[in-house]
Amino acid sequence: MAATSGGQGATGIAKPSLSGFPEWLPGQRMVEQRLIASLRSTFESWGFAPIETRAVEPLSELLRKGEIDKEVYVLRRLHADPDDAPAGQGGDQDGLGLHFDLTVPFARYVLDNAGRLAFPFRRYQIQKVWRGERPQEGRYREFCQADVDVVGAGELPFHHDIEIAQVMTEALSALPLPPVRLQLNNRRLIEGFYRGLGAGDVPAVMRAVDKLDKIGPDAVADLLQQTAALTSAQARACLALAEIVTPDASFVDRVGALGVTDPLLDQGVAELAAVVDGVAQLRSDRVEVTADLRIARGLDYYTGTVYETRMVGMEGLGSVCSGGRYESLATSGQQTYPGVGISFGLTRTLGPLFARGTLAASRAVPSCVLVAVTDETTRTASGRVAAALRRRGIPCEVAPSAAKFGKQIRHADRRGIPFVWFPADDGTLLGQVKDIRSGEQVEADAGSWDPPAQDLLPVIEVGD
Amino acid sequence: MAATSGGQGATGIAKPSLSGFPEWLPGQRMVEQRLIASLRSTFESWGFAPIETRAVEPLSELLRKGEIDKEVYVLRRLHADPDDAPAGQGGDQDGLGLHFDLTVPFARYVLDNAGRLAFPFRRYQIQKVWRGERPQEGRYREFCQADVDVVGAGELPFHHDIEIAQVMTEALSALPLPPVRLQLNNRRLIEGFYRGLGAGDVPAVMRAVDKLDKIGPDAVADLLQQTAALTSAQARACLALAEIVTPDASFVDRVGALGVTDPLLDQGVAELAAVVDGVAQLRSDRVEVTADLRIARGLDYYTGTVYETRMVGMEGLGSVCSGGRYESLATSGQQTYPGVGISFGLTRTLGPLFARGTLAASRAVPSCVLVAVTDETTRTASGRVAAALRRRGIPCEVAPSAAKFGKQIRHADRRGIPFVWFPADDGTLLGQVKDIRSGEQVEADAGSWDPPAQDLLPVIEVGD
Repeated sequence: MAATSGGQGATGIAKPSLSGFPEWLPGQRMVEQRLIASLRSTFESWGFAPIETRAVEPLSELLRKGEIDKEVYVLRRLHADPDDAPAGQGGDQDGLGLHFDLTVPFARYVLDNAGRLAFPFRRYQIQKVWRGERPQEGRYREFCQADVDVVGAGELPFHHDIEIAQVMTEALSALPLPPVRLQLNNRRLIEGFYRGLGAGDVPAVMRAVDKLDKIGPDAVADLLQQTAALTSAQARACLALAEIVTPDASFVDRVGALGVTDPLLDQGVAELAAVVDGVAQLRSDRVEVTADLRIARGLDYYTGTVYETRMVGMEGLGSVCSGGRYESLATSGQQTYPGVGISFGLTRTLGPLFARGTLAASRAVPSCVLVAVTDETTRTASGRVAAALRRRGIPCEVAPSAAKFGKQIRHADRRGIPFVWFPADDGTLLGQVKDIRSGEQVEADAGSWDPPAQDLLPVIEVGD
Repeated sequence: MAATSGGQGATGIAKPSLSGFPEWLPGQRMVEQRLIASLRSTFESWGFAPIETRAVEPLSELLRKGEIDKEVYVLRRLHADPDDAPAGQGGDQDGLGLHFDLTVPFARYVLDNAGRLAFPFRRYQIQKVWRGERPQEGRYREFCQADVDVVGAGELPFHHDIEIAQVMTEALSALPLPPVRLQLNNRRLIEGFYRGLGAGDVPAVMRAVDKLDKIGPDAVADLLQQTAALTSAQARACLALAEIVTPDASFVDRVGALGVTDPLLDQGVAELAAVVDGVAQLRSDRVEVTADLRIARGLDYYTGTVYETRMVGMEGLGSVCSGGRYESLATSGQQTYPGVGISFGLTRTLGPLFARGTLAASRAVPSCVLVAVTDETTRTASGRVAAALRRRGIPCEVAPSAAKFGKQIRHADRRGIPFVWFPADDGTLLGQVKDIRSGEQVEADAGSWDPPAQDLLPVIEVGD
């Protein structure tokens, strides 16, 4: 666990007064903001433009994906009344729900604005979403996601699958987080393999293999024989495929050694090798990259590349960053919009790290300096010192009361502010500045003094 | 109206497919983000820490302010069912609504976390809020606010009233917006004046004077005599007070000339003069500061300083940035939390400016450069050029297809990207870069070439 200096809310979690709706203390919110700024910066450097969609969608849009309909929060106006709106208006306000992901609203936004967007359209979107499911660690009812997608009109070349993996690898590498493992696979590869193996019911095979983590290989082998009508040898081949995990394109030979051939399998293998190779140069201490042939992503709409990401040592939390290639984000008349994208679960990642004390801000306030007030008649002079520091980028605040200096220092300490400035009596920018951690106090000029670089802004501290 | 270069969504508003729930095109979202980043930067330089609260509050909290209860959006889970949660859990999920401002959740957050916050607690909060009221220009059902408050435990010195005005003046001055007028007043001043004048029913006087903009002085004079039992002379004095607008503390003499005396009036006059003087040095071309004795803020909870802000020339839109001093944000047992704060209506400001074309981004994508692809076999080389540019902070993207160069240039033009990079055949970082606006094309090295500073990032263009 990281050592954290004092100050309000530097560690711990805000009291969760409503289960599933996490709130951070101010220092944690600063960490979250720093992460969001970093994600934005990476996404924009790759030419992704930001959008933000409204929080609500018509229920008819939200319920199109039947599998999670029970998770939707439905809205109604407390005093909704036909008299509130002229006839024919307000009807569109009926049947609204909070969005449960950023994909459904993105699809609707693309259709709404297709005539004003240039395709392939590159967008990122960092917003809260809501799901009414039962809260547990890493699963919330309100949480923030960061999505990045490229969507084409009619077609979208495969190379964007590589690009999306590259963008997110670079984005994750830039975040002050414990190491993560990006796990890459391809639905064509696994579906082609099952088909080439002679499986009649490919979805049944996928469903069974998807239970590997939960029930283990022996039970999956049984299930494959019972529910997917595979022979024992076929079942073993499926398990052998799922066990392949390589840090590079060497999975190609291992798949080949299983002796299954199928054109879809060949395409999937080639695509996965291209994605793994494309990301290889970007791997870092923080992001490990693997081809992991167990990854399937349960969702029906993925057709090729699939991405998952786990925090190393916290694999039990599940994937914190997932996505893939989908052949149809949306359709409008004759036009189909295929895409590829990935979504980083910001709250899902931060919640467990905050709870464990793994991630914290070095202080819970932006202020680097508390400017003391000698007595209330000279508060304006203290304000001038603060303004001079601020003009040079040093966050600071003026003491709330002209109490004894000892009390003002204790106030700084309680807030986690490292420096206290004592203005001289002459109303100038001269004075003395004390590092309240070491007790060292020196003469200084607010027009030129600088704090040590590591004290200027709160720093994110990453522990084990 | 500002000239805007081409590119998706540089002007216009995203199709409002749901009345009252505005969405911006990507270029507009970039403008909004730039404003948010600027607000954050100012607030943090003054030592305000960020918080974000959940979007929902118990209805009991939201309905405490009876006056806007009909505006609340109530939530329910689509398939809410007693079986969904173990007995005793989930009950707290009943009766939730979306917050309609950031004050109610802030008050609740302070009570929830009082033991972990140091007071005076300085926070800012930039979030969406929801109100079910009828949409009109500048009035939305979903909109974003930026609030900044100082809250004390038990007491909060008056000088924070000055500080809040200073922070917001500096924040507004830093925003790329048309000029605004900050209008300052003090409830003690007007209440003391009415009391000193002999008004028996001070709230009735305030309600009548508050109608000045709508019904004019003659009708207000009538109303004051009918509903507040004032004499004609008393009514004229109230109107004379409301007419006082000064750019400095000269209002003091003009109030004095009305010949009313009252201790509360004196306190209010002194406080307002201190706030006006405190902000005077910060006024700029973008922020005009006035003492405006007509400003009352209808809300009961303001007790001293009140702030409003109007866009110059668009006064009809109402105040876009308002707040004041309140004696009790929240109470808990014996502890009361007084505060002072101000809230900037980001969506309320941006919506009308976007609709008028007054505010736009110079381009709708972050990318400064499109790196062309000669043929698909050299896409990796184009990617290396892009990576080299990106490493030096130049946002860029690689062309989606190896079409003829003319088509790639047209793609850049359609997206509003000013430069196209043509890599040399040798796979190095050398190549040629074309400014597609002027047609000028020069030899360049992606390891050292820089675009003109004004082209590096999208620029916000402010028109009339």
